[in-house]
Parts: sequence; structure tokens; C-alpha cells
Amino acid sequence: MSFNTYGHIFRVTTWGESHGPALGATVDGCPPGIALSEADIQVWLDRRRPGQSRYTTQRREPDAVEILSGTYEGKTTGTPIQLMIRNTDQRSKDYSEIAETFRPGHADITYWQKYGIRDPRGGGRSSARETAARVAAGGVARAALAALAPELSVTGYMVQMGSRRIDPARIDMAEIERNPFWVPDAAAAEEWGTYLDSLRKDGQSVGAMIEVRIAGAPPGLGAPVYAKLDTELAAAMMSINAVKGVEIGEGMSAAGLTGTENADEIDMGPDGPVYASNHAGGILGGISTGQDIVVRFAVKPTSSILTPRRSITRSGEPTEVVTKGRHDPCVGIRAVPVAEAMAAAVMLDHLLLHRAQVGEGPRGRIG
Amino acid sequence: MSFNTYGHIFRVTTWGESHGPALGATVDGCPPGIALSEADIQVWLDRRRPGQSRYTTQRREPDAVEILSGTYEGKTTGTPIQLMIRNTDQRSKDYSEIAETFRPGHADITYWQKYGIRDPRGGGRSSARETAARVAAGGVARAALAALAPELSVTGYMVQMGSRRIDPARIDMAEIERNPFWVPDAAAAEEWGTYLDSLRKDGQSVGAMIEVRIAGAPPGLGAPVYAKLDTELAAAMMSINAVKGVEIGEGMSAAGLTGTENADEIDMGPDGPVYASNHAGGILGGISTGQDIVVRFAVKPTSSILTPRRSITRSGEPTEVVTKGRHDPCVGIRAVPVAEAMAAAVMLDHLLLHRAQVGEGPRGRIG
Amino acid sequence: MSFNTYGHIFRVTTWGESHGPALGATVDGCPPGIALSEADIQVWLDRRRPGQSRYTTQRREPDAVEILSGTYEGKTTGTPIQLMIRNTDQRSKDYSEIAETFRPGHADITYWQKYGIRDPRGGGRSSARETAARVAAGGVARAALAALAPELSVTGYMVQMGSRRIDPARIDMAEIERNPFWVPDAAAAEEWGTYLDSLRKDGQSVGAMIEVRIAGAPPGLGAPVYAKLDTELAAAMMSINAVKGVEIGEGMSAAGLTGTENADEIDMGPDGPVYASNHAGGILGGISTGQDIVVRFAVKPTSSILTPRRSITRSGEPTEVVTKGRHDPCVGIRAVPVAEAMAAAVMLDHLLLHRAQVGEGPRGRIG
Amino acid sequence: MSFNTYGHIFRVTTWGESHGPALGATVDGCPPGIALSEADIQVWLDRRRPGQSRYTTQRREPDAVEILSGTYEGKTTGTPIQLMIRNTDQRSKDYSEIAETFRPGHADITYWQKYGIRDPRGGGRSSARETAARVAAGGVARAALAALAPELSVTGYMVQMGSRRIDPARIDMAEIERNPFWVPDAAAAEEWGTYLDSLRKDGQSVGAMIEVRIAGAPPGLGAPVYAKLDTELAAAMMSINAVKGVEIGEGMSAAGLTGTENADEIDMGPDGPVYASNHAGGILGGISTGQDIVVRFAVKPTSSILTPRRSITRSGEPTEVVTKGRHDPCVGIRAVPVAEAMAAAVMLDHLLLHRAQVGEGPRGRIG
Repeated sequence: MSFNTYGHIFRVTTWGESHGPALGATVDGCPPGIALSEADIQVWLDRRRPGQSRYTTQRREPDAVEILSGTYEGKTTGTPIQLMIRNTDQRSKDYSEIAETFRPGHADITYWQKYGIRDPRGGGRSSARETAARVAAGGVARAALAALAPELSVTGYMVQMGSRRIDPARIDMAEIERNPFWVPDAAAAEEWGTYLDSLRKDGQSVGAMIEVRIAGAPPGLGAPVYAKLDTELAAAMMSINAVKGVEIGEGMSAAGLTGTENADEIDMGPDGPVYASNHAGGILGGISTGQDIVVRFAVKPTSSILTPRRSITRSGEPTEVVTKGRHDPCVGIRAVPVAEAMAAAVMLDHLLLHRAQVGEGPRGRIG
Repeated sequence: MSFNTYGHIFRVTTWGESHGPALGATVDGCPPGIALSEADIQVWLDRRRPGQSRYTTQRREPDAVEILSGTYEGKTTGTPIQLMIRNTDQRSKDYSEIAETFRPGHADITYWQKYGIRDPRGGGRSSARETAARVAAGGVARAALAALAPELSVTGYMVQMGSRRIDPARIDMAEIERNPFWVPDAAAAEEWGTYLDSLRKDGQSVGAMIEVRIAGAPPGLGAPVYAKLDTELAAAMMSINAVKGVEIGEGMSAAGLTGTENADEIDMGPDGPVYASNHAGGILGGISTGQDIVVRFAVKPTSSILTPRRSITRSGEPTEVVTKGRHDPCVGIRAVPVAEAMAAAVMLDHLLLHRAQVGEGPRGRIG
Repeated sequence: MSFNTYGHIFRVTTWGESHGPALGATVDGCPPGIALSEADIQVWLDRRRPGQSRYTTQRREPDAVEILSGTYEGKTTGTPIQLMIRNTDQRSKDYSEIAETFRPGHADITYWQKYGIRDPRGGGRSSARETAARVAAGGVARAALAALAPELSVTGYMVQMGSRRIDPARIDMAEIERNPFWVPDAAAAEEWGTYLDSLRKDGQSVGAMIEVRIAGAPPGLGAPVYAKLDTELAAAMMSINAVKGVEIGEGMSAAGLTGTENADEIDMGPDGPVYASNHAGGILGGISTGQDIVVRFAVKPTSSILTPRRSITRSGEPTEVVTKGRHDPCVGIRAVPVAEAMAAAVMLDHLLLHRAQVGEGPRGRIG
Repeated sequence: MSFNTYGHIFRVTTWGESHGPALGATVDGCPPGIALSEADIQVWLDRRRPGQSRYTTQRREPDAVEILSGTYEGKTTGTPIQLMIRNTDQRSKDYSEIAETFRPGHADITYWQKYGIRDPRGGGRSSARETAARVAAGGVARAALAALAPELSVTGYMVQMGSRRIDPARIDMAEIERNPFWVPDAAAAEEWGTYLDSLRKDGQSVGAMIEVRIAGAPPGLGAPVYAKLDTELAAAMMSINAVKGVEIGEGMSAAGLTGTENADEIDMGPDGPVYASNHAGGILGGISTGQDIVVRFAVKPTSSILTPRRSITRSGEPTEVVTKGRHDPCVGIRAVPVAEAMAAAVMLDHLLLHRAQVGEGPRGRIG
């Protein structure tokens, strides 16, 4: 990771501000010969797009992606892929007051302190709008994974929203696509709708917890000891706006377990090792085991709320901040497709990094 | 991060196996003219060294560091600093059985699957012994920070060990150095000793939670959007052996909060902004605010336990694994100085990265 | 350097094909607060633009740059700067024959062999049109240098074109901007025009040698031993299309000198060391001395010529290739602004890298 | 390249000073399962070792390499390989005068200006002794190439020494190993011995030109447009001490050719394309063609000579410098094995980088 770039081989650089003319992603290192059209990417962007339900910001933008380079006759050429998304809903308004005030919980103050200049329009570079570029790049990663590791799947879903958690007994992965919260629990989805309506009415916001499950990853991915697979997945999630914590498998609760409880016992199955449990979350020593990889992360509640909060201006004067207008009561909802995109990019990158050092597929045979 | 290297400007590459002739760290990009002797590094290594109390592994090694390059007359020259630690306690024993068996919860199986070869002696590269090299490199980072940002301090301590947590009401930072658990709570320290004794007697292990607090960091550090300060601290911690989760400030519990609860209100103080709370953990938008930076992470219990666990051999035969001999009932204890070292390295690196792009100190003035 | 990216701190990734919808550069790591408008960049692009004299390709494109991100109210914000240039002169024609044939001396065959796919339209990614993106990025570097090191200047010029060389006795730097060859010799310029006219009439091409002189660089820039300043300048030039050799100071002829002839003696001047000569080309041990930095490189003649050349098709059949239509008899002419851009980017990058590790300005005082 | 590291996948970081306790190379990213012993590396170090003939410095060191990590039972494990060479011939002497004086043509002055501190003992980090670490790392690259691309060979040899050039008509590659100059021309070897004897007697030095020929490289290696194979070979050579110019194939003389002369015509051979000539030096568009890759570079004469040269002291006083004692009359001789090592490392790195993005072997078939 380096400023606005992540990845070793499959390298993504995102660019653009919330209210500039456009934003996008420069994707380098993609394998050649991968079928890729704008539609292949648009399908993922459409999942992230705001304004699709009453639970997300009412900013309405088509978020239409254009591929400006890197493909020929519908296939990647191995050269940089430029993905551009025009910003079309930059309501012209007066930003002079916003430019002078620091909203509590926003990056306004730190961008100012760091750079001595910031684009105040819609949060500029610190806006969650940047994540559209991540999703577009993730679409390229998905296309490459479909060709190189067709059995690999990446699925994100919400497991907590504010004070509500899903009931593990009711989990049904087929529900994820049937509700606006990406929650694998039909009953939760309904109740959460009511909950969020009341929060929205109060101009309140809540945090969320999201889980990403990567199934079908081959064993052997990850580059210890500093480019471990769990390290890079954690970094990928932590780099998403508003994320405050990330865990793998048992995660933070591993602190409370004993070694006997935590060990995943191993049996020999017909196609190789089979694990009796998955406390490890599919990663041992930074390398994938072949089990499901399980990553969980927490998104803080947005600080764009109706309750007035104490703050200061650029000249150091006390002030009060209230956020009016369109906003997301739970920004965690839209973090789901973003996290999937980041996970897809990391998995592809490690697939390529593995074949760089070790060659195609895992090396050591068992049985 | 790239294989065994981390850092942008202050770049650390660690090398070495548990039972090879030596291990160490190649440190590049250190500013020149920094006072640095072996003693300056040894003091940190001594904190991590095993065998200091009955609560850590009884492997006894001096872990004496040698500076092989990069200094002249007690000062860094700006050229690579090679830090070497000889392994002196490699008990010669027969590793043929270990080489054939995969210990549940260890990286044995994934290293084998990835590389098709592994050094079975003491876990080879996947051993926590690698963290000695991290601590040595952290010693260089501390020396440079002492010169460039003398007000910055990095303090790690345990906040949970298995089923025991500290009592926030009893926290006294001065206690940290007075007990073998680095716990800022004298009463806890005493009770934890008894607890750990009983675990050790049973050949059991427990997980732990560690907090690292970085005080005195200037505002403006961090390089959004992929080299954010929280992203890089999270990656640094997640790369440490056995770490399964990491969080900043409010962390995972942010998922359950409302925006009103989570916002850190801002007042103007005599020397700049003052925050009424620190839910953010000192970082907004990936950039330091000037508050204390608070990072927390969970270490899983070691799977080297006396309870037999089911596993398989390299040829796919079922077997049972019991770990006898020296081991740590709570590997989290020794993770404290390691985490401090990683935090110091990340902070120095971002200090240098900031002055690369922006120059010395923060840019935007307030008030 | 990594695929399509160069630079440590000031990082440039170029993207785009000759006949795609657009091409451009993603510029990351630029210092904030630098005055930068599209006009500041356009002025450099206009120098490279084809069709300005009868000596360069008659492809006519405005090469108008758009800044899509990274500036606010005319200043850089420290976030990624996206520079886009629309391709407007992609004559629609049938590329099916070109797609099947490999032109001798072109990258057609190697791109095909490497990737198994290539964009045949105008050479795709291997086209010298990619250098427009380099020039645009160089414009950003120039703007930053103007603010950070105003005394630093970068000047490129031709010193040889085919069988013609400039006469050192007649060099007048003011002439460079007065002729279409960027040659600092008025008499040469005139004669070279006649020479090139006759080559063009014959459908012939010639190589060229270009020199870039960087004046006003402070001593102390460069990061030995692998990111030496001369190494990185050499790499920057060698990465330009058609470049086959690069040298610093005395260059290749240093092989024939004695140590007595080659040593640059040092005297003390009023403002520091003064060198009696500059065989070193302004760089010792990979670090700038404060003298003029002198880089020279050779551009091969384009293989797009009227003389039929033997080749093969994709199916391995023998064929003959003749290039008709617009082309440059001396592609070296347009390499001049490209080389300047690359030199400016490298110098800025090393200025930033130096201040990362060492701080502002050189460290060791003399006198 | 980054400070003291080069390579994308096969990453080499060298460390150490001329007169410190040791120097070495940290080699990361090497494929696992490669047969590698100290003897495999020593054989290459022995070729570079000083004091082997009367034509190189009389410093006598065994330059014995120790592998401190990264192998197990004679094979690489895929973890970092630490190669250490003890310095044994650091004659203790008084360096206080040298520390105060800048030798013309040396990096003394620029290291001082950059860092404000330097190790004056034997040139410290700027000493050509650092190249021993390059050769050791090259030995690892050779071992990996022997396994992954057994048909690939790397051969360096001198083509010019001061005023003497080899006669192309007399080239016999078998001669290279038979004389102390690595010159493929028996008659030249004899005459050069006499020439160098006389230079040595006069305390004079001369430059040299070295050619490296890489045969058996598959087509398709190289990562345009900034990690081109020629760019990276040029950078690798330019980073070697005293190198002032580097060229590929026709090189600098391409400036004087016409397109007709320079084009390498292509025929279809039994196993793929066959080129009628090799002006390109085996690389088109930054990607290998499958022909011999030909790199040439110039080494300047060392400035350690008996002729007094004018210089200044650190306090700015005028002085005169004469280098007495052991030195190389032609440092270019020992640059031959160094260049081979660098070429081997670059080729291996690109082999791995290619299989990362594209997979094993070239992609596009011809015929």
C-alpha cells in the first residue's frame, strides 16, 4: 500500500473527489485475455449505488463506469485498465461555511491539518464516494477470478446494525440479495427496516458489523511474514471509510479462549485435509488453509446527524454542527459491496503473487 | 508490505528461522545522525526475551543483538542497518516426527502446502522467534523517534488474559513495568499470576488482548486512502504471530453505537483543538488528530498444549498431537514489546512519509 | 518502477492506448498547495504535440489535458491528480491486416508473444503516444519544482540526428526554442531541415541523440545504492520508446579515459565546492554534486519506413512490410520534451525522497 | 528499486560497509525447493574476489559466504535468505585525514553533503566492496534460473580497456575464463596484460567497457512501460559503482543509423521466429524477443591514482590528494562478475513477474 495504491501484482490506484468531474480507478497488473466489459463492472457498481432504497443517501447518480483503456475486443490486454465514473449529482451550493467549519467525527480537520488545503465539497477525497472506484476495481478482480479460480466466491453480509444482531440459527445465505441490508436473515431484515426508519426520522445514525466469507480459495495463498493473507485482508477492510476494527475467524474473542477450545482439529478427507472447526477463519500463519476465509469488520455510525455537536472553525472559534439534507443512517449498508470488492482484489493479488514465487497451485501434497 | 518487508521510507526486512544459526532485521531508510548503539536496542530485546519469569517459555537465550552495518562512531549513517541475533539455544533433537505431522492450529500445514518444503525445527520461519527481529528494528525506530519526535511515546499493556479483564477503575500505568504481564493494574497482576500458574500446570493456554497507546503524535500523520495510519497500524499488529483481530479507538463496539454517542466533540484549547472524547482512537480519515492513538488487538491461545488434538501426517494418516516441553501458556505476554516495536516503526515511517510529501510538521493552522 | 508506475513518493502511473478513447496519467504523492491549472500542463504538451512542423507525424490532435482530480481552486490538494487526454484523431480503418502481421523492429511480436492479445490499432499501448501522458505528468512535476526548488531547470536538446552532429563550438542554448529540432545550433538547424526533407521524401528514418541538462539541483539528491540518482535518470530515459542507450556525464567514452583525465578537481568557491570540470555529469556515488546533471540518450530510427522489410504473419507465413501514411522520419525530435518531463519527475521525486530520510536540504556543511 | 533494494518478486537488499564487521545481502521472494549451498554461491564470489591476479587490488579476503537463513537441508524454503560475508582484511589505520578530505571523483563529498556523516574507512558504503553482496545474491539467482530456465545463460566479458578494444574477428568465448581480464580474445589478453602493467607502474588507471550476453531467455519477459526489461537491465548496470553509461543492442550508435539499417528482419524458423540480425539486442518494446539479450556498459577509471589532484577539506581548505597503497588499475575487470550477477537477478525477477501476471511461459503462439 502506498498513498492511493494497493496490491503487489494486481495494483489498484483510486483517484477522484466527491464533487469533482469524475473519479475512478487505475488498475494495473491484471492478467491478459480476461473477458471484461463495462457491464461486467456495472453490475457490482449498481449494488453499491446510493438511492436504491430509502435506507441509503438520496444522492442519485447512475455511477456509470467507462473503460478508457486496457481492453481490446472485450478482453483485457495486460495493460493498465482505466475505469472512470462521472460525477453527475454535484448539487451546486455554497460550501464556504463548510469550508470554515470542522464537522466532529469527519476527516475535515485532519485533512486540513495535514495538507493545509482541502476540497470541502461533499468531503472531497475523504468522502465514501471514493468507494465507488474500489467497487469498479473489484469488478475487474471478480472477472479475473472467474477465469483463474472459478470455484472461489466472495460474499459479504451484515451481521449487526446498531443494537440489532442476526440470529445465527436463522441464517439463510439466499436472503442476502432479497433485502436492502444484505442480511442473511429474513426476520432480521424486516425488523431492521422499522428500526432504521425510526433512526432516520430522528436524524440519528448507527454503526454496523459486516462479515465477508471467501469460499473456494485454494490452500497456500499468503506471503508471510508481512504480506500475510490475514494482514492484507485486514488492511483492505481497515482502509474503507469509517471502519474501526477488523477480525479473522474467532477474532477479538480469541482473547478469551483456551488452546483446547481454539484448536481446529484436522482429519483426512477424500480430497485432502478436512478441519473439524474454523476458529482460524481459514488462515494459519498468514496462509490460506482451503477452508472458508472469514473476515469481520465494524463500521462506525456516520457523524452526519441532526443532533447538534460542538466544534470549532478554522479560525478557532466555537461553533455547533448539525448535518441537514441527504445522508445515510447506516453507512455500513453500502460498505458490504465495497468490502466484497476489496476482498476480491486481495484474493486475486495473492493468487498472482503465489504463482510468481511458487508457480501455479499449491506445492506440498498431503496423502 | 512485501513478503518479509514493511514500511515506505523506514523499511524493515526480517529474516531467519527459529533454529537456524541466526535471525535479524535489515533496516533501511533510517535518518542519518541518530545516536544508536547495541545497548539502545538490547534494552528492548531484553523486555521480550523468554525465560524471564515462570510465565513464559523456558528457552533461555541471551538474544544479544549485533549491529553489523549502518552506524559509524555510534551514529546512524543513513545506510542499511543490519541487526543480527545469534540463536544459541537450539537444542539438538530429532525433528523427523514433527516434520511428518501437522500440529493443529500451527502454520505447519499451510507452509507445507504453499512451499512444499518447511523447516520443522521449532516452527522454522513461522516461529514467534521472528518477533525478536521486529523488536530489534523497533529499537532503531525508537532511537530515531527520540531524536525527531521526542514527545512521542509508545506504551503497550495487557487488558485481558483469557477470562480475566482489567478493571478500568484501577488502571495505573506505572504498574506496567512492575509485573510480568505488562498489566496496568496491580490487583489484576496478582490474580493473573495464580490463574496462569493453574493453566500452566494443566498444560493449557489462553488468549490475550493487548492495547498500545501512542501519545504525543503530531496531527497530520497518515497517507489516505490506502496508507492510512489506522490501516497501517492494523496491518502491523495483524502481521504479528497469533493475532486474530485489531481495532482502533472504539473498535468493534462502534458497530453498536449511534452517531450521537460516537462523535468526539471539539473545543479550542490554548495550543489547538481539544477533543471532548476519543472514540476515534486518535485517527480521523486515516490521519492522526493529535490525540492519543489507541490500538487494541487479540492474540489467540497457543495450540501447543498438553491436551491431545486430532491431526494428520504428511502422508494423510490420522494421528494425535500433544505438545510437551517448554512453551508459553499465554503467548500474548511477549506480544506486548513486539506490538510496541511495530507501532514505533509505523509511527516513524509515517513521520518520514509525511515530511516527504508535505514537509516538516503539519500544514494547516487552526486559530 | 512497477509495470506502468514509476517514482517513490511522486508516483506516476500512465494508462491508455494509441487509439482508445483516451490516455492519461495518475499522479500520486504530489505535495499539496502547488499552483496547478490545465494551462500549466498544456504548455508542455503543446511542445510534444505532433503535426507542428513538417518534420513530425501529421496526426493532428489537440492533446488537450483535463485535470479530473487532485486540485481545488487551482492548487494541488495532496490527493491523486488524474490527467486525461482524449484521443480525437483515431482514423477509423481496417486493422485486420496489421493485426495479423508483425512489423520488424516494432513491439507487435513481443506484445503478442507475452500477452497472447494486443491492440493493433496504432500500436496500442506500445505506441509513442503514451509519452503524451509522461509529458502531462512532467508538467505537474515542473509545477512542484517551481515551488520547491525554483532555481532548478531542466533543458533537453538534440545533439545528433542520424549522420549529423552539432558543433560544440556553435552551441547557443537560446537557439533551442527557435527551430523544430530543439537543436542549440542555428546552422545545424538549417542544414538538418534539408537533410530531413530528403529522408522524408525517401520514406527513410534516422536515429537521434538527445541531451538533458539539469541545472540548479542542490547537492545531496539520490538514494544509494539502488535508487541512485544516475540509476533512476537512466531508467527514466531507457523507458522511453525507442531509446537504446543512456549515459551520464562522460558516459560511454569514460571507458577510454585514464583516471587522471577523468577526475574532476575541486576548489572552494564562495558558496561551497566548485569543480574544475564535469566528467561525472553532476553525480558522484549516485548523489548529486550541485553541478549540472548531464544525461544523454540515443533514440533508434523508427522502423516505420517505405523500404520493404521481410517479416512473418501470426500464422508463421512469410510476408513483407512497408509502412505507408503519416510517420515521423526522426522520432527523436519528439523525445526531447518527453525526456525533459521524465527528468523533472525524477528530480522532484528525489527531492521528496531526500527530505523523507534526511529532512529539508543537504546535511553536511563544507567550509 | 528503493534505497538499497532492487527487484519486484526476487528482491535483494544489500547491506554493509567496506570496513565494518560484515556485509551481505537479504534475498527475499526466491522460489522454494531450489538446491542451494554455500558452495553454489562461493563459486561466483571467488570470481570477483580481489587479489587473484596482479591486475586487481591486493586486498586479500576469502570473501567466504555464510547462509544464515532461508534454506533447509540444502534447499530454499521460500523464506528470506540471509547471505553474510565477514570483512577480514580491515587493516587498522588512521582514517582521520581521509575523513577530513574529499577525494576527487569519489563519493566522499556527496555522502557527506547528503547525510552529514560518513564512514571514511575504505569508502564505507560507497566502496565497490558492496558488489560482493551483489555477486552473492546473483549466485542465488543463478541457482533458481538453473532450475526454472536451465537453457538461460549469462556471460559477461570485457570488450574495451582504456585505449584497447577487442577485435571482433578474433572473438572466442572459450577464452573468457582463460585470462584475468575476462576478454574473449587471446591476443588481446596478452597485450592488455602488458598495457595494464605499465599503467599500474605509473599509478594510473583506465576505464573499461563490458558486455553481458544473456542467451536462452524465452520471449515475453519484461513489463512495459516502466518495468521494461531493457529499462531494468540498464538500471541494474547503472547502479554498479563507477558505471557511467549503458546500452542495449545497437545502443548509442543507433542514433546514427537509418531505419532500413536498423530493422531486424524476421523469418519463420522450425521453432518460431528467427531474426536476420540483432540490432535490437533481444528486446522490443521492453519485452524479450527470444534472441540473445546484449547489454553493454562503461566503467570509469578509478580516481584512486598516484597523480596528485586538487581538492578541498571539510573545512573548505585547499588540499592535494594522492592515493597510495593497494588499488585496482582497472576496476572494470571486477565489474564483470558483478554485472553477470545483476543480469541474473533481473532475469529471474522478470521470469517470476511474468508468471505472476501471465502464467508459465509466453502466451501468444506463432505458426
